[in-house]
Amino acid sequence: MIQVIGIGMGLGQITTEAAAALRECDYIIAASKRDDDGLLALRSAVCDAYDLPLIVVPDPERNRATESVRGEAGYVGAVTDWHAARVAAYREVISTHAGRPGFLVWGDPALYDSTIRIVRELDDDYSVIAGISAPQLLAARHRIVLHEVGQPVLITTQRRLASAVAGGSENVVVMLTSGFADDLVAEAGIADWQIWWGANLGTPSERLVAGTAGEVAEQIRSARDAARAEAGWVMDLYLVRKP
Amino acid sequence: MIQVIGIGMGLGQITTEAAAALRECDYIIAASKRDDDGLLALRSAVCDAYDLPLIVVPDPERNRATESVRGEAGYVGAVTDWHAARVAAYREVISTHAGRPGFLVWGDPALYDSTIRIVRELDDDYSVIAGISAPQLLAARHRIVLHEVGQPVLITTQRRLASAVAGGSENVVVMLTSGFADDLVAEAGIADWQIWWGANLGTPSERLVAGTAGEVAEQIRSARDAARAEAGWVMDLYLVRKP
Ligand SMILES: C[S@@+](CC[C@H](N)C(=O)[O-])C[C@H]1O[C@@H](n2cnc3c(N)ncnc32)[C@H](O)[C@@H]1O
Ligand SMILES: C[S@@+](CC[C@H](N)C(=O)[O-])C[C@H]1O[C@@H](n2cnc3c(N)ncnc32)[C@H](O)[C@@H]1O
Repeated sequence: MIQVIGIGMGLGQITTEAAAALRECDYIIAASKRDDDGLLALRSAVCDAYDLPLIVVPDPERNRATESVRGEAGYVGAVTDWHAARVAAYREVISTHAGRPGFLVWGDPALYDSTIRIVRELDDDYSVIAGISAPQLLAARHRIVLHEVGQPVLITTQRRLASAVAGGSENVVVMLTSGFADDLVAEAGIADWQIWWGANLGTPSERLVAGTAGEVAEQIRSARDAARAEAGWVMDLYLVRKP
Repeated sequence: MIQVIGIGMGLGQITTEAAAALRECDYIIAASKRDDDGLLALRSAVCDAYDLPLIVVPDPERNRATESVRGEAGYVGAVTDWHAARVAAYREVISTHAGRPGFLVWGDPALYDSTIRIVRELDDDYSVIAGISAPQLLAARHRIVLHEVGQPVLITTQRRLASAVAGGSENVVVMLTSGFADDLVAEAGIADWQIWWGANLGTPSERLVAGTAGEVAEQIRSARDAARAEAGWVMDLYLVRKP
């Protein structure tokens, strides 16, 4: 049995269920990406706290060249190849280690994470533990509800923000970001929208900015740079709402 | 300082941060609604576990007659009056009790919950702790990701489902439900969509159904009745996805 354990944004967000699942594991498998040494360190802190050995598997490279040349189809294709390479790497680790493996997922395994899709191919005997996601910690830190009374909230990626707004969405959580700037605000047509932004949530380099999107873009850019300078890495997301 | 603490779906989902916040409270305020004795019992179990006195405040009635006669405007109006009555009731409790109050929120305070809006009016000195929400536990129990690779997910209410589908949403989490049946499937036009449904998640009366919406409506209806019969109350939600 494989455990897929959402650990939220670090030790502060571990649930009772997640702690129990950690205690049932014999070792933890984690991917190391070129650009997320910080996340690896956070996962390694969780392993230390639960006295679990951590087996680090270098993550296969994603073919970003193909993605950008071929657009949406290239994106899906690149993700598919990358996925197969990850499955093979994890299968190798599991076949050479005795005991029950666990995968620590940053945030919630249900949101923009491929661990469940990978583990499903390794072994159908697995269970999933939910973890606090980045949108939730964003809302908690800003002390807001993710939507107005009875209204919907769309969770999407930055590459889809402009089309979501064009399609009529008025309250959008944006993840998988790559910086926030005036040209994005202009392209999406959200200059007068409210924004609640956060970076490196749940960690010592956490940063928060709230205001009107067209007015705070520069403030967000510099807070993002500061978070990256402090931690060595940055992950950010935001909620935007039509006034 | 007031603590607004998301407790997820009960003791299994309490995070480290939530546990620390509970230990900083002197007492807990909880609303009791006519129709959620079950939820009150779950909150009371959390208070027992953390040795905290629970002060139960009868929830003012919401004027559902106005809501249904006047549609959307009536809904917002009724919610506004109800909100003012709740603020007054809690202010009374806080002014007559010494020490630091906490509010336990079922799930996450950021999703379809009015506690933050109420507390904000009581005292601006408050903090919010995120909790595991119903959509997350739904995904974990079904061992799925809430969306396909790189795709968006819309979280909305059952009253808005049909218009969300008409507006082009293809992957929708539906909350604030009032039963699932063939006429809803027909109205929303989702007979061939996939559905992942869950009731009373995180509790002993938990039920899960997955399948094609047009084929499992009857199975969901009876699973929902069974959950209600077992617990004395039922809360359910579902994810629907276009094939
Ligand atoms: C691959 S997704 C993983 C999401 C994660 N499974 C969750 O539940 O939040 C990574 C994206 O999540 C957001 N994110 C994750 N952790 C974050 C953090 N600590 N602070 C701000 N944003 C974060 C960023 O938008 C980032 O691009
Ligand atoms: C007023 S909202 C509160 C949502 C909560 N704050 C959260 O984060 O999930 C109540 C709705 O959440 C869903 N819900 C809450 N708890 C649930 C549970 N244990 N099982 C299934 N659905 C639940 C149902 O759709 C219900 O109508």
